[in-house]
Amino acid sequence: MRLRNKKWASGWLAEHNDLVIDQERATGLQGNWQTIFEKTQPIHVEIGTGKGQFIIGMAKKYPEINFIGMEIQESAVAVAARKAAEDEAVLPNLKFIFGDGAGVETYFTKGEVAKIFLNFSDPWPKSRHETRRLTYKTFLEGYQSVLPAGGELEFKTDNRGLFEYSLYSFANFGIKFDPAGISLDLHNDAYKMVDNVATEYEEKFSAQGFLIYKFVGSFE
Amino acid sequence: MRLRNKKWASGWLAEHNDLVIDQERATGLQGNWQTIFEKTQPIHVEIGTGKGQFIIGMAKKYPEINFIGMEIQESAVAVAARKAAEDEAVLPNLKFIFGDGAGVETYFTKGEVAKIFLNFSDPWPKSRHETRRLTYKTFLEGYQSVLPAGGELEFKTDNRGLFEYSLYSFANFGIKFDPAGISLDLHNDAYKMVDNVATEYEEKFSAQGFLIYKFVGSFE
Repeated sequence: MRLRNKKWASGWLAEHNDLVIDQERATGLQGNWQTIFEKTQPIHVEIGTGKGQFIIGMAKKYPEINFIGMEIQESAVAVAARKAAEDEAVLPNLKFIFGDGAGVETYFTKGEVAKIFLNFSDPWPKSRHETRRLTYKTFLEGYQSVLPAGGELEFKTDNRGLFEYSLYSFANFGIKFDPAGISLDLHNDAYKMVDNVATEYEEKFSAQGFLIYKFVGSFE
Repeated sequence: MRLRNKKWASGWLAEHNDLVIDQERATGLQGNWQTIFEKTQPIHVEIGTGKGQFIIGMAKKYPEINFIGMEIQESAVAVAARKAAEDEAVLPNLKFIFGDGAGVETYFTKGEVAKIFLNFSDPWPKSRHETRRLTYKTFLEGYQSVLPAGGELEFKTDNRGLFEYSLYSFANFGIKFDPAGISLDLHNDAYKMVDNVATEYEEKFSAQGFLIYKFVGSFE
């Protein structure tokens, strides 16, 4: 969902270029992302981080992981980063990239990212927009090019059509499905909810009775 | 679901061994199934045919296909076959096997079956019963051994856990997912419902508001 434009975003981002990395600097950091974090530890990336509730929640919950939230929309990444900036607990292990998910292979080297998250990505429901879906095969190639062998992909959505399509795309790409990795009604799946960190959308839509779908798999 | 035992079933089946093939005769027909049909045309098999509504509906709808309903429960196969026997339209292109789905590779040769259907199979929800699920890998090996390269598998169920498990099992077996082959709410998917032939369960449970899941894929 596109946020209303925030007039303060551009200026705020310019003043916080330590927390929010722009595309040019992100490209320059390829192979050296550990240098901008306090500790050298596995890096997990969320592509399309929106207003940041998920990645901030994860960074708090897992201080032993370095997190990067990537977001192409200026107002969204500014809202997310400003929220993070108010929270000292996440500052050592959370950064943002203000940039395009299609560029993931230009920002990271093979194996530099341990895990990728996609949450409530734009469904692009029309067939002619298939190539824009973040689960389309060219994007999967990008993810594979930065993950190690066995690197995981986690994906949540409330959009049935996108989930149906994505299962097809994952399977035929050769992604290995996790034995207990699929949930077709996550919020009624007590076992899988134990560790769930919800996004803004997820809280809102599951409260309205919509199903939340989840997938976990790994690249070869 | 187990049917109440029908006292007439055993006698009726003995009198209709042209329509309902027992396991011994089925094994003897391996490689020669076309000889028992009126016309030589592709053979589609439903494993676990229950009371037969699906396979009878399919046989009527597609007279250019030979159908075989396989069922291990004597009372169910007798109910299904007796229903078929009352319907002249299906008699040229429909037979039953009173036998075990685990035996599929002992009944048919490679490529003798063009397509396999699984409908509302027993979910066997406990982990220790995984190997009994008709979508477990040893069953998939059996299906692959009787289908040609590219032979299709269609699967419907209302059981979320079984469907989640089966997607994992199909993907990791290497079954190719059909681009539009997954539906997570078949009865609200107008496009995919056009050609749907419903089973008894499917009618009953979808009328009660339960989701019906469908998968279509093909073996390499």
